[in-house]
Amino acid sequence: MKTLGIAGGGQLGRMLTDSAHALGYRVVILDGIKGNSAVQVADAQIIKDYREASSIRALADECDILTYEVEKVNVEALIELSNKGFPVHHKPETLLTIKDKFQQKLFLLQNNIAVSAFQKIDSPNDVRVVAKEWGYPIVLKARFDGFDGRGNALILDESGIDDAFKKLGHNMLYAEEFVHFQKELAVIGARDVYGSVVSFPVVETVHEDHICNIVRAPADIPKSIEQKALAVAHQVMDAFASIGVLGIEMFLVGDRVIVNEVAPRVHNSGHFSIEACNVSQFDQHVRAVCGLPVENVTMNCNSAVMVNILGDREGKVQLSGVDSAVSIPKVNVHIYGKLKTRRALKMGHITATGSSMKEVEKNALEARRRITI
Amino acid sequence: MKTLGIAGGGQLGRMLTDSAHALGYRVVILDGIKGNSAVQVADAQIIKDYREASSIRALADECDILTYEVEKVNVEALIELSNKGFPVHHKPETLLTIKDKFQQKLFLLQNNIAVSAFQKIDSPNDVRVVAKEWGYPIVLKARFDGFDGRGNALILDESGIDDAFKKLGHNMLYAEEFVHFQKELAVIGARDVYGSVVSFPVVETVHEDHICNIVRAPADIPKSIEQKALAVAHQVMDAFASIGVLGIEMFLVGDRVIVNEVAPRVHNSGHFSIEACNVSQFDQHVRAVCGLPVENVTMNCNSAVMVNILGDREGKVQLSGVDSAVSIPKVNVHIYGKLKTRRALKMGHITATGSSMKEVEKNALEARRRITI
Repeated sequence: MKTLGIAGGGQLGRMLTDSAHALGYRVVILDGIKGNSAVQVADAQIIKDYREASSIRALADECDILTYEVEKVNVEALIELSNKGFPVHHKPETLLTIKDKFQQKLFLLQNNIAVSAFQKIDSPNDVRVVAKEWGYPIVLKARFDGFDGRGNALILDESGIDDAFKKLGHNMLYAEEFVHFQKELAVIGARDVYGSVVSFPVVETVHEDHICNIVRAPADIPKSIEQKALAVAHQVMDAFASIGVLGIEMFLVGDRVIVNEVAPRVHNSGHFSIEACNVSQFDQHVRAVCGLPVENVTMNCNSAVMVNILGDREGKVQLSGVDSAVSIPKVNVHIYGKLKTRRALKMGHITATGSSMKEVEKNALEARRRITI
Repeated sequence: MKTLGIAGGGQLGRMLTDSAHALGYRVVILDGIKGNSAVQVADAQIIKDYREASSIRALADECDILTYEVEKVNVEALIELSNKGFPVHHKPETLLTIKDKFQQKLFLLQNNIAVSAFQKIDSPNDVRVVAKEWGYPIVLKARFDGFDGRGNALILDESGIDDAFKKLGHNMLYAEEFVHFQKELAVIGARDVYGSVVSFPVVETVHEDHICNIVRAPADIPKSIEQKALAVAHQVMDAFASIGVLGIEMFLVGDRVIVNEVAPRVHNSGHFSIEACNVSQFDQHVRAVCGLPVENVTMNCNSAVMVNILGDREGKVQLSGVDSAVSIPKVNVHIYGKLKTRRALKMGHITATGSSMKEVEKNALEARRRITI
């Protein structure tokens, strides 16, 4: 029995573990929080900080194949392991490029993939310079460790520059042109060791306070836009040429599809696939990193809507209302088993399926309303 | 966070645990084998023999709701707990009736549910007496602890009586008329605390060496037979009036549907529901026993075929071929994580889905052929 090691013990690791188990793997989780979400369903835990190289080496000692569910994982150790021939997926180069959002954008641009205008920023004056070209608003971003809106500051006009620098501190920064998009789209792509590249259906994502909150599958877009989005996703997958699942977030601007951000892992926008597709994003990632073939994806319902269950207070989890939520037809609840909640923490998600998108979304939102956590 | 206690740590407990986790429950497994299948994905294990009353009491101390995945569980302790108001599902009376196959048949008959002729047997001569009425072959069965063909003996003629008694020992026995059936059918029914009763589609089961090996969903039967099978299942559910999932095995004889055997738990014939239905039998059982509502069931594909992965030797597990198996479209593999294999032990299962039953079955069988374990 082979062992898959996963650096990171959150909900993504938890759902990856379920898929790995079904395919016959043991799973060891590396995470500093004892008994974190993924650990509850896994075979073993290494209680160490995945940002430390020594922790990654300790995980490698306990597994046959190594993957990660967080970008913050120590990349130097992954490079070291990979150079020795230890199977690490995505390959460390992919993580290295994606970890630095400025490098990520540069990489996409160099591979002829449309992105919004961006510029390295070293001082407040650099913002004034790009503002002359782009106009306001401008988005100032930390190059590293931004996540769910942390590490972003919107500058509405010149008077907001100092506040933005204060918010982000003196980190390495870059600026992006503010994009007036019609919709946010996302595609989950998967690439296996045999070179097969497959995509999940294009979805529409709705963010609230920078956190992906609603996902509609498939996106309500013209066929021509769908084809563009899938082509862009394929370009991105080819550019990285990396084994595993990528979460590719995009903006629809007029009839252009531009890439916003790529995640080197399974992604919130793909959770709907557990119920709504013949194979889930978690299955595909496990298959890919373990050397199994990925599979073409079809939806097994007309419409699916995923809604996150986000924490809305600080404290111990007090779950209720799941009974009432699942009394709504074709509603599936996924609670992540976290013991403490805090504002905007991802505590679970709901996927509703059915024939009409309008009804499915109504059901998903009503189910969410009924749950407190 | 509430805790569901499951007596029994096999694959049924494992798949129940996955469902319970998603719905926000902790899971504690009672099983004498350390690290057994369900334990690998659960939150905690009590390493004790579930046939002992003290073990059941120890489990109750660690959980809020108690269920079981094996008939051999100590029923006296369940009665004691239930009498004290501790939530135990199915209710112990259901288990008590079903555990004794003779009582089970009697109970079904008393509730006007068609079963094959049966008779309590105390001596070889009793067999000769019923043979005059029914003719041979006759099936001699142990009243208790029969499972997957263990505890059954087929008597082809009078000369076989002594061998049958030798095989079954001096256990409490009964005899059944041999049924020349056209097909074996099964229905998974679920009943919740609100009194709702729902059924999964009627499936056809194919047994080899007394072990359910192939399940075709839905069964290829006329509408009138389907309706009869569902009506019989409903009668059985009503007769027991018990909370949780029942697995109801039936024979199709001419245009009659008779009940063969009822299991007070999720059942091998319902595994297809994980991929092929909007809600799985494991979800439904967890919902029911935890006081959540069960849901109407629809299939999300035309055809599904489940094939068991049975052990074919004695020894340590050496899994291979999963990569090749999942290269077949719409094939899902479930490995149960057992560390040792033996002949006819259930090591995993495969569910293939698609539009044509013929193709789906071909895919499922080919996937099975490619896996060694």
